[in-house]
Amino acid sequence: MNPYNGKFMKIVDMRVHSIAIADPPLRSSYGLHAPYALRNVLELVSEDGIVGIAETYGGEQPAKALHDVRERVIGGDAYRLTGSLLDLVEGDGAGLERSHTMTTPGENPLDAGPRTYSAIETACLDMIGRAVGKPLCDLLGTRVRDEVPFSAYPFYKHAGGGGEGTDAREDKYGECLSPETIVEQVRSMKQEYGFTDIKFKGGVLDPEIEVETIRQLKQAFPDSPCRIDPNSAWTVETSIKVGEALKEELKDGGYLEDPAAGIDGMAAVRKGLLALGNDTPLASNVAVTAFAHMPESIKHDAVQVVLCDHHFWGGMRQVQHLGKLCQTFGISLSMHSNSHLGLSLMAMAHVAAATPNLTYACDTHYPWQSSDEIVAGGRVKIEDGRVRIPNKGGLGVDLDYDQLARLKERYEKTPYRNRDDQAEMRKHVDPTWERKLPRW
Amino acid sequence: MNPYNGKFMKIVDMRVHSIAIADPPLRSSYGLHAPYALRNVLELVSEDGIVGIAETYGGEQPAKALHDVRERVIGGDAYRLTGSLLDLVEGDGAGLERSHTMTTPGENPLDAGPRTYSAIETACLDMIGRAVGKPLCDLLGTRVRDEVPFSAYPFYKHAGGGGEGTDAREDKYGECLSPETIVEQVRSMKQEYGFTDIKFKGGVLDPEIEVETIRQLKQAFPDSPCRIDPNSAWTVETSIKVGEALKEELKDGGYLEDPAAGIDGMAAVRKGLLALGNDTPLASNVAVTAFAHMPESIKHDAVQVVLCDHHFWGGMRQVQHLGKLCQTFGISLSMHSNSHLGLSLMAMAHVAAATPNLTYACDTHYPWQSSDEIVAGGRVKIEDGRVRIPNKGGLGVDLDYDQLARLKERYEKTPYRNRDDQAEMRKHVDPTWERKLPRW
Repeated sequence: MNPYNGKFMKIVDMRVHSIAIADPPLRSSYGLHAPYALRNVLELVSEDGIVGIAETYGGEQPAKALHDVRERVIGGDAYRLTGSLLDLVEGDGAGLERSHTMTTPGENPLDAGPRTYSAIETACLDMIGRAVGKPLCDLLGTRVRDEVPFSAYPFYKHAGGGGEGTDAREDKYGECLSPETIVEQVRSMKQEYGFTDIKFKGGVLDPEIEVETIRQLKQAFPDSPCRIDPNSAWTVETSIKVGEALKEELKDGGYLEDPAAGIDGMAAVRKGLLALGNDTPLASNVAVTAFAHMPESIKHDAVQVVLCDHHFWGGMRQVQHLGKLCQTFGISLSMHSNSHLGLSLMAMAHVAAATPNLTYACDTHYPWQSSDEIVAGGRVKIEDGRVRIPNKGGLGVDLDYDQLARLKERYEKTPYRNRDDQAEMRKHVDPTWERKLPRW
Repeated sequence: MNPYNGKFMKIVDMRVHSIAIADPPLRSSYGLHAPYALRNVLELVSEDGIVGIAETYGGEQPAKALHDVRERVIGGDAYRLTGSLLDLVEGDGAGLERSHTMTTPGENPLDAGPRTYSAIETACLDMIGRAVGKPLCDLLGTRVRDEVPFSAYPFYKHAGGGGEGTDAREDKYGECLSPETIVEQVRSMKQEYGFTDIKFKGGVLDPEIEVETIRQLKQAFPDSPCRIDPNSAWTVETSIKVGEALKEELKDGGYLEDPAAGIDGMAAVRKGLLALGNDTPLASNVAVTAFAHMPESIKHDAVQVVLCDHHFWGGMRQVQHLGKLCQTFGISLSMHSNSHLGLSLMAMAHVAAATPNLTYACDTHYPWQSSDEIVAGGRVKIEDGRVRIPNKGGLGVDLDYDQLARLKERYEKTPYRNRDDQAEMRKHVDPTWERKLPRW
């Protein structure tokens, strides 16, 4: 007889763990990273004791959004919740308002539904994968790669690593506020992780310095595709100027990401560049963050590379849908990242493995979270710039409950309950600083 | 320990059964149905003896296309084949040429890849579902309904049922070549199956008679949404005329399906109707049959309802992708059918259950294949016009191997190896008949 049966996947418990992980003082157009990045870890427990896990955006609001659906999750079947909770993805009109121009993905309340759904979907698929002994990406179907390439993600930063008080410690990169120090930052990351591609976070210093930074990166690593992402910090005019200045440097696998704000701004940059014979692709995870943005973006040719992210696009299957939609319209796919630990890294790898059109190396902040990890056995390996899909059930990683307890305790002790890069900027760098779009 | 393990799903055998099923002399703009409709049944066998099954288009060419990938299937894992065979869906440019204007879905050689992939995907998912004791739609995720509504599918037809020689027998509908007999046909189908919606196959008689047929149907069944599908038999002008004549009748859940040929023709009809203040939605499974058609169709607002079909769109997950793509662009989804048995009916129900945007009742030819069935226990139940997703693993139906053997034997004895409705039309109705587009 068949040893399998359908009763296994009933969910009897749901646990949400809010944690704080040391994060270095990275800069972006949003401001400054706080000493701790916040994450929530979700555990779903089946009646047979199989635990499915997921990592998502941190702090109070995402945790509350998860708690709010607890009653709909408990008693549900891991195979059925992606259906019964679908209103979280589609219910709110999945609005055009859901941009990340002014708020980061974890902080936009309009993302709460898709974010919550995504964490539950991931935990359910992890649970099912563990039960049947199959990697999560094979439950999604259309797995086209066994190793997923990620990019080096250099940031301008101040000296010092993450954490406060007894957590505080220097990181090996020190202050990086010049082209030369960014090149050294990338050299170090490449040595440690074997990254090929480089995704550079701009929008922090004068565009001329950032152009020079990319030039020096490309000079130092001529075979590395280079991308720059100023998070909407520039006018259309500046964007076109930078696009022209970096026309050669952003070729062959590079792109210009979210130079200007909004679909209108992006479309204007595209039009301006094309008029100059410059077809550098524009990428976005700020102007385009939801399916509702796609028709407008396609109509105006605003974005040629969409940066997907299962954490806020409504989960893994929605990212697969997005991949096919983009492919149909000749649009490429890359992947957005937020400060995260190994659990999210593995989830991102599984989604990428099962999304054929995701041909760019994915973003990851993982190298910046080097002092904390909740994955049993320590940090997930990135070798030759790639994460390998483990030949194990589900995500293929387990929780280290001691580490989880340690980071929960820390969360309780810290005052941070949301991400506010502007407040951090005022506290540590410039008391009068405010986010201004466009700045240049 | 976990009773599940990852070794279970290795495929060790693949069997393709070509069968012939009695089919009545139905008419369409393609011509006349032959006395037998052809189908292929696929069995994939795991090393532990679990058999996954699927039904697909019939005859020599689809069977050969399946045999051609045998070496890639044997030894593969049911969880992985949707990845390793993906070139069948995407490899050939998935061409714009893949229209069904002149060839039916099963007969267009450009569909061979997606068709073959679909059958293998369905059999793999059925196998996995049986192994884990979960309905197939729950493996796809986002199951939003437990019962799937289908439409009554009236056809103009000649007297007599399907089959030749000893198979030949009258069906209960007799000759239906007038509005009145079509109304009686639908009345009988509604009584037997409880259908609410009516999808009427036109393109056979003078458009004025077909308009009158819809009017009488709507008069007899005022609460039933009505659709008409002449398979591209009309000029743009005639299409607009019919659309205007049936403006009221096609409201509230109705649509005008493939009145004129091609995306251009459909766009012109749409434009013409809108200019008259008539926003009857246009549906298509002829002008739009592949993802490659979508950008052009969307650009010109050619089609407001896409008729999906996992059998030729590249499988179940591709239909889910299509559903999300359509939803994103405000396009609705209905489902195409071809002469089929209960195995395909169940597969269609599972896809529909897991495709949120599929809100129209699906097409089905099932009532026309009433004298043959390969599903164990006999015909799949349609009650209140709906097919219920069984609470069983996989598709939820098994093969009746005696019936399969009987229909295979019949296939061997018949001369039919492909679908050629024009040849049948010449043989039985008019020796000089040819398919002419547009005819009116």
